[in-house]
Order: sequence, then C-alpha cells, then structure tokens
Amino acid sequence: MSTDASPDITGSTGAALNGTPLPADDPERQLIAKAVREVKETTPLAQSFTNFVTINLVANAQLAAGGTAAMSYLPDDIIDTAAIAKATYINVGTLLPFFKDALGNIARSLQAMHHPWVLDPVAAGIGRTRSAILWAFRSAPPTIVRGNASEIIALAGIWDLNVPSADSDTGAKAGTKTGTTRPAGVEAVDDVDSATNAAIVMARYLRNYAPNHRAAVAVSGATDLVTDGDTVYRLPGGSSMMTKITGAGCSLGGVTATYLAVADPLTAALAASALYNRASEQAAEGCTGPGSFQTRFLDALWNVTAEDIAASPITVSQVPVSQNSVSPDTAGTA
Amino acid sequence: MSTDASPDITGSTGAALNGTPLPADDPERQLIAKAVREVKETTPLAQSFTNFVTINLVANAQLAAGGTAAMSYLPDDIIDTAAIAKATYINVGTLLPFFKDALGNIARSLQAMHHPWVLDPVAAGIGRTRSAILWAFRSAPPTIVRGNASEIIALAGIWDLNVPSADSDTGAKAGTKTGTTRPAGVEAVDDVDSATNAAIVMARYLRNYAPNHRAAVAVSGATDLVTDGDTVYRLPGGSSMMTKITGAGCSLGGVTATYLAVADPLTAALAASALYNRASEQAAEGCTGPGSFQTRFLDALWNVTAEDIAASPITVSQVPVSQNSVSPDTAGTA
Amino acid sequence: MSTDASPDITGSTGAALNGTPLPADDPERQLIAKAVREVKETTPLAQSFTNFVTINLVANAQLAAGGTAAMSYLPDDIIDTAAIAKATYINVGTLLPFFKDALGNIARSLQAMHHPWVLDPVAAGIGRTRSAILWAFRSAPPTIVRGNASEIIALAGIWDLNVPSADSDTGAKAGTKTGTTRPAGVEAVDDVDSATNAAIVMARYLRNYAPNHRAAVAVSGATDLVTDGDTVYRLPGGSSMMTKITGAGCSLGGVTATYLAVADPLTAALAASALYNRASEQAAEGCTGPGSFQTRFLDALWNVTAEDIAASPITVSQVPVSQNSVSPDTAGTA
Repeated sequence: MSTDASPDITGSTGAALNGTPLPADDPERQLIAKAVREVKETTPLAQSFTNFVTINLVANAQLAAGGTAAMSYLPDDIIDTAAIAKATYINVGTLLPFFKDALGNIARSLQAMHHPWVLDPVAAGIGRTRSAILWAFRSAPPTIVRGNASEIIALAGIWDLNVPSADSDTGAKAGTKTGTTRPAGVEAVDDVDSATNAAIVMARYLRNYAPNHRAAVAVSGATDLVTDGDTVYRLPGGSSMMTKITGAGCSLGGVTATYLAVADPLTAALAASALYNRASEQAAEGCTGPGSFQTRFLDALWNVTAEDIAASPITVSQVPVSQNSVSPDTAGTA
Repeated sequence: MSTDASPDITGSTGAALNGTPLPADDPERQLIAKAVREVKETTPLAQSFTNFVTINLVANAQLAAGGTAAMSYLPDDIIDTAAIAKATYINVGTLLPFFKDALGNIARSLQAMHHPWVLDPVAAGIGRTRSAILWAFRSAPPTIVRGNASEIIALAGIWDLNVPSADSDTGAKAGTKTGTTRPAGVEAVDDVDSATNAAIVMARYLRNYAPNHRAAVAVSGATDLVTDGDTVYRLPGGSSMMTKITGAGCSLGGVTATYLAVADPLTAALAASALYNRASEQAAEGCTGPGSFQTRFLDALWNVTAEDIAASPITVSQVPVSQNSVSPDTAGTA
Repeated sequence: MSTDASPDITGSTGAALNGTPLPADDPERQLIAKAVREVKETTPLAQSFTNFVTINLVANAQLAAGGTAAMSYLPDDIIDTAAIAKATYINVGTLLPFFKDALGNIARSLQAMHHPWVLDPVAAGIGRTRSAILWAFRSAPPTIVRGNASEIIALAGIWDLNVPSADSDTGAKAGTKTGTTRPAGVEAVDDVDSATNAAIVMARYLRNYAPNHRAAVAVSGATDLVTDGDTVYRLPGGSSMMTKITGAGCSLGGVTATYLAVADPLTAALAASALYNRASEQAAEGCTGPGSFQTRFLDALWNVTAEDIAASPITVSQVPVSQNSVSPDTAGTA
C-alpha cells in the first residue's frame, strides 16, 4: 500500500539505496505479469486467519484480484484447509485469548507442511499477548512479512534480530535498533526508509526457514519497499485515500498471499504492492470521499491489467557489502 | 444464490428431475409474494449466529429485504432473543473453540422452544470442530438447511443419512454417497444436481423434527434447487458476479431466516432464492466490478418487488416413487 | 443518529422540556465547530472494543470524520493503547464468554488512568452475560453513554438509578421505571422522550466519576437528545435510511469517542449527533437504496463542514428544579 500520491523517491535514502529504475525488459516484470494472470486464470485458494475489523475486505480484495478466499480461526480448520490451499495469511490485528496458543501451533504445522504463508504483524509492540504470539513465530517464521515501517522495526526487535543501526558505516539511512521506536497503534510513526535495514535482515532470517530458501519482506508506506535480502525494490505511487479507509494494509497482506499461491515470495510481494498502487490511483480519480473510494478500489482491483501492474515504476538497489556481512544466524538466542 | 448468468436447465439432470414450469397461477407463487410483502410491512426480527467474515452483509441484506437483524454468539443472548424473534439463522463459517458446546446447546434450546431456524453448513467436512458441531445438530436439527452442493452432500454424510447413490435405478443424476466428494474450502466442487438426492433425503429427515412437520433444503448454484422432500423446485438465473463478492451464500441464508419469520420453510427458501436471482441480475447491469456490484446488490434487494420475485422462472418435479422408498428414519444410528 | 427525516420537536414532551432554539452565537456552537476542526487537523486516536457486526463501519466512520482508529478485544492491548489514545469506545453488541471478565477489568483500568470513554449499551436487558457486564461498569462508569431510548432506560434499571416516573409532578413526559420497558433486540421500542429522565439521572451519576466531573448521555432517535445532567439538548433531522443499514448507532458511538479525544463530553456528544444528522441527510439525497446510502454516508461524513455541523438546529431546556432534587448518590446499593 502506498499512502502518498506524490512520493519522493529521490535522494532521501542515502547513496547506497537510491536505486536505479528496473528495466522494462527485466525478467522480474515478466514474473509479476505471469503471477497476476495465473491468479485470474486459476483462482487459487489462499486462506486467512485475520482480524475482525477488515476480514470482509481481505476476502473481497482476494476475490477481486481473482483468487479464492477462506477464513478461519481454528487450528484444525487451518490445517485441513492448508492441504488444499496454496498459501496462508495470518494477521494479528485483533487478538482473542485463545489465539496465544492457537497461532503458534498453526505456524508450527505450516512449517511441518512446508506451506508458504504471509504474516502481517499489525500493531507489533503493543500488548504482551501479541508480543508472545510474534515471539512464537520466531522459530516457525512466515515466508513473507508485510507491515508498515514501525511494525517491521518492532518485529525485528521482538525477534531480537541484529539490525545495523542508522549511524553504521554503510552510508544508508538505516533502520533503528530494537526499542528505539515507539508503537503508535496501527499507524506507522516511522518512515519506510528507516525500516530498510530491519527489512533486509528479516528477509535473510526468513529465508533460512523458507521453502526453497526464498523469502521476502514488504514495508508499506508512501513508497513501498520490498526485499528478498539481497536486493531492495522501491515502488512509488498510490493514493493517500488509502489511509482514510480501514484495511488497506490488511487486505494487501491477503492479496500478497493470493499471489504467493502461484509465485515466489519476491514476485508475490512486488505484484501485490504494484497492484495496490495502480488500483488506489484509479480509485482516487473521481471519488468523492472514503465511501466511494472503497467501492471504486474493489472495482479497480478487478480491472487493473497484468500489463499495467508489471509496467509499474520500480527502482532497484543491491544491498551493500557491509550489510551482507550482517549474519541473521547470529541474531539473538533461540 | 445463483452463480451463472446463463444457466442450462434443460436435459442435464435426468428425465426424472427435468421438471416442468411452475404455472403463473400456482398457489405457491402467491405464498412467495405474500411472504415478501409481509416482511416489508412487519419488519420481523430474525436473529443470527453467523461467521465474522460476512456478518455485516448478512445484517444489511436482512435489513434491505425489509426485516430486522440481531446478531449474537452467546446462548443466553440467543435464547432471550428467540423469545422475541420469529426465526434464527446459524452459520458455522468461522468457528471459535467455545462454539463447540455453545451451538449444540443453542440448537437444543431452539428445539425445546419449537423455534424455526436456518442452518448454513459452511465448509462442512473441514475440521473436526465443525464436524462435531454439525453432528450435534443431528438430534436437534434446523427447519431449513441452505448450502452449496458440496456442503449439502457433506452434511448428509456427517449426519449418516441414507442417500441413494448416482447409479441407483431412479434414473436421476443422484447425489453422491458419504465421503465420495472432497471438501474445497468454502467453494462448491460439486454441481447442484449431484446434491439432489442428498437434499431430498435431508428434507425428509428435517421434517421429522420440524414445527408442523414442514422443512426444506436449499442448494445454491448456477441453478438453485429447493425441496421440501416431496417436490423439487429449480430456480435459474442470477449473476456470476455473486461468486466475486464474499457472503452471497451467507447472506442468502440470513434472508431465508427473515422470510421464515413470516412463512413456511418451502416458501421462505423459494422467496429468498428468487429474490437473490433477481437482485443479482439487477446489480450486474451496469456494475464495473465487485465493489459497485455489492453496492448495487444491496440497493436491488431493497428495490425488487414482490411481484417480480413471485414471477421468477421456477421448474418443478415430483420426487420419483423409488426415491420415496428411501426412509430417513433408518438413517444411521443416533 | 436521527432516524426520521421529518421529526416533530414541538409539543410532545411536556412544557418543562419543550426547549428553545440554541442561539446562533451560543458558545457551545463554537465548541462544536472547534472539536470538528481539531479532529480533522490532529487525527486523534480513539480506540474501540466493539461488536463484530459493525466494527468495520465504526473504524471507517472514525476515519471519515478525520480521526484514527484502533480496535482490540484484549485488556493488555487496550491498556497499552489507552496510554497513547485520547479516548476509548466500548460497545457490548456481540459478546463472547471471556468479555465478562475482560470488560470489567478494562473499565477499572481506564478509571485508574482517568481515561475518558464512551459506552454503547447495545441490547441492554437481553442476556445475563450482558447484564453482568453492564453491572460491572456501574462502579467504573463511562464518561458518555450513547444508546437508543430502550437501552438508556434498561441501563438505568440495571444500574438501579432512581429515575422519576412519568407520572411524577415534574410535568415532563418522563422516563420509565426499571423493568417497565421490554427489550426488543437492538431496536428501540421506546421513543426518545420517554428516556429523558433516565438520561438526566444517568448523566448526573456518570459525572460523579468522570474526569473534571463532566459527563453526558446521548439518546438516539427521530430527534436525538443529549444531556450533561443540567441541560437537555434536542437535535432534530437526519434520515430514516439510517435504520436500513446496520451500525448507524454503533458508528455514532465510535465517532463520539473520536470527538471526546479532543473535547468535553457534552460537546463531543452534540458534535457527533449533529454530524450524523447532516451526513445522513446528504447521503439520502439521490441514494437508490441502502447500499448506495452507506457509500454516500461515508463520503458525507468526510465532506460535511465544521460550520454546517455547528449551525445545526438544536433546542435547549434547563432541567426543572424538581428533577434537580433527584440525587444519583442515593441510587441503589453498590
């Protein structure tokens, strides 16, 4: 999700991460187009365990993107459905007491099944129940994490990942150290770039556990950031109206799971971010408030073409060598 | 709910169930028109225990059809409200652990109160918690079951009903035996006709327990099927856009309960199915995607007239004698 | 929320409460305009513990009014968030078993933090779990109660407040005594004026516990009623379409909390009621059913100006002396 109609993607992130435009003929663009088309053609099932606020929008967004949805809160349901679904989405937005055990159990079962899944760590850092659940995911982590900058930074802290600080010698405007950011409910109080290092380290951590050792982290904001741990992609665009409806981020996580059902994690995260940027721009044109925006946004998710999504503006940067030396294997204690 | 704008209702179901058009002056059409009008005039309360995904749409659809809605998850609430509501809707789409005991207790209380209710066995066959809940309903069953073909077949299996197999001598393309269908999340993988025998046997089972010994089973699909155990009605039409929003089936179950508050089970199921076919056709005209479709669908539920609903295309077939010999009384063990 | 497009505010409430128009230059109107503007400028966070039916609309209405939303069901979440939010909204519409302890604990924590909050006592009087929860709020009460007339009367009964009966010597058409009204699910069966005395006594009870000893009670109906215990305000207008979508009242409670984050309780309740009246009138113009009404209503919440809200028709009456003699301190036993 992008939350600023006129984002600035130049010069603000330090030389190392400025990025260059992804060429029009880059193979990744073909993978994005293929994923979008395959979802529309095969209507894959991605199941969700998600919050009560936006569960309806998550399902409707997945359907509008072309997929099939199933929502559940019970481990026995989720495990049965994981056998027929190709990906799962877990969002910790509104917790009930029994989730504390249930979610850890589900994550371990998905791990045993080598089943790919997307985590949205909504409001990471708030509430000891949520922190306990997020900690439980550390040893059975998702394939993709999608959140806003504050959530990515907070989750890296909860997982005790060794994130280089901003004043390191990398030259990058880096992510903050564990505990140096404050949670702000479900809204980000940090900008996307400040979560860059946390995202990179987290992606490397995830891929240690991921099917085929491929994973991704997506940070939503004025310009979205997606990384597989080696390369950082930035996706500008979108509409600020996305911050005036509830569930923009949650449903983006759900659609990411829909694409993950047919594509690798990096491609899934890029396709979902690009779709959301294009669809929210379409929806913002001619809307007269958040009600008509949401209606138009669901229509736009349905109408944006694979070609438009794949042709989205994307910049790319390789992770500097000094960051490559950060070993997620040494992060914290298990 | 109908999910195909151009359904084929000729020739595909075997000679025994082809059906003939329901005459324009058939008394059942007058009962349908009366039920639709009575809801708009008396705004009856039908309460719901339904899933978290589509609970908002269920309530809004009931209001748009002219009724009043109240939703709850606690037996003490439901029992208090059953004393002032005229029908109840139970949908097992998203389960929480405490539902396992709560739902059986609610069903037994409704039975003791002779209170009519509609069951939507969402995702029947998936998860042992759901199967345990559906089993608990066997001895305190609903007045109407509404589901897709896969759910009806799976529920007949869970209840151990003695459904004739497709290769029986009835000449009908019959429902499948317990366990021969695979669950597919919340989407049907079987066509409506394959659930015909399961629906007939189930309707006969339900009426053994029902107030006034009247019950019905409704199977949603490209052409909806409704039966009271003696007669099979088929309702073609609708829009394929209904499969591109979440909650089309769930909210149809809720509106069925709204009509059940003022009418007999067969009439309630027919009226709800016909309303949904007409409203979804209206909504599909001029919609530009699933967002505008849902907005237009709620408007259409509000605007379709009793006359339009009652004049819907309906075919009717009597259940063959050989099927009449199927005794639900011998079904399984209690 | 107002549910009648052409309300009658003359002559029906007894001479003592007829009211006179609030002058255009009354300072209260300036406070209302200031609250509306401050929400749009500072996007304050108001968190909610609300029912599953309309949780999405509550959040979207808060966002459309200009605020920020966070929803939760766990005490540890709520307490953490209360430290960064400026107000909280609690709605008892759909209960789960664990809410019984959780909600009392949350209320006591909010009290200890001197944190202002709004209660919507949905369906007060139905279900012993709900009654137990509402009783638990008696010793740690909200800053504002917002409900329909039946709910306000029922809550006054549950709290055992000493409400003068309608045949008292006050000359007012007064609220009914505990137990003399019947619950009707989530719909009011009493008119707003019948809850006047209950609202006055309740407001005086609340302010004994409130930060700065300021509290308010809002009764929604054809003409809304708001009182701080000394003065009764009536706000006519709105649209009957508000009764044809679910969540009009719930989301009004949420928006009241949003205004409470920046204003005193009386101003917050008046601003929210006036906004809802103006927005529902705007939405009703040109809508073609409840689907388009809801879309237009969210747009209107976004578009109605502070000036329009503050200029709303409002009548005002002072509470008669005989009612002032009612001491909430003597209400019931603790």
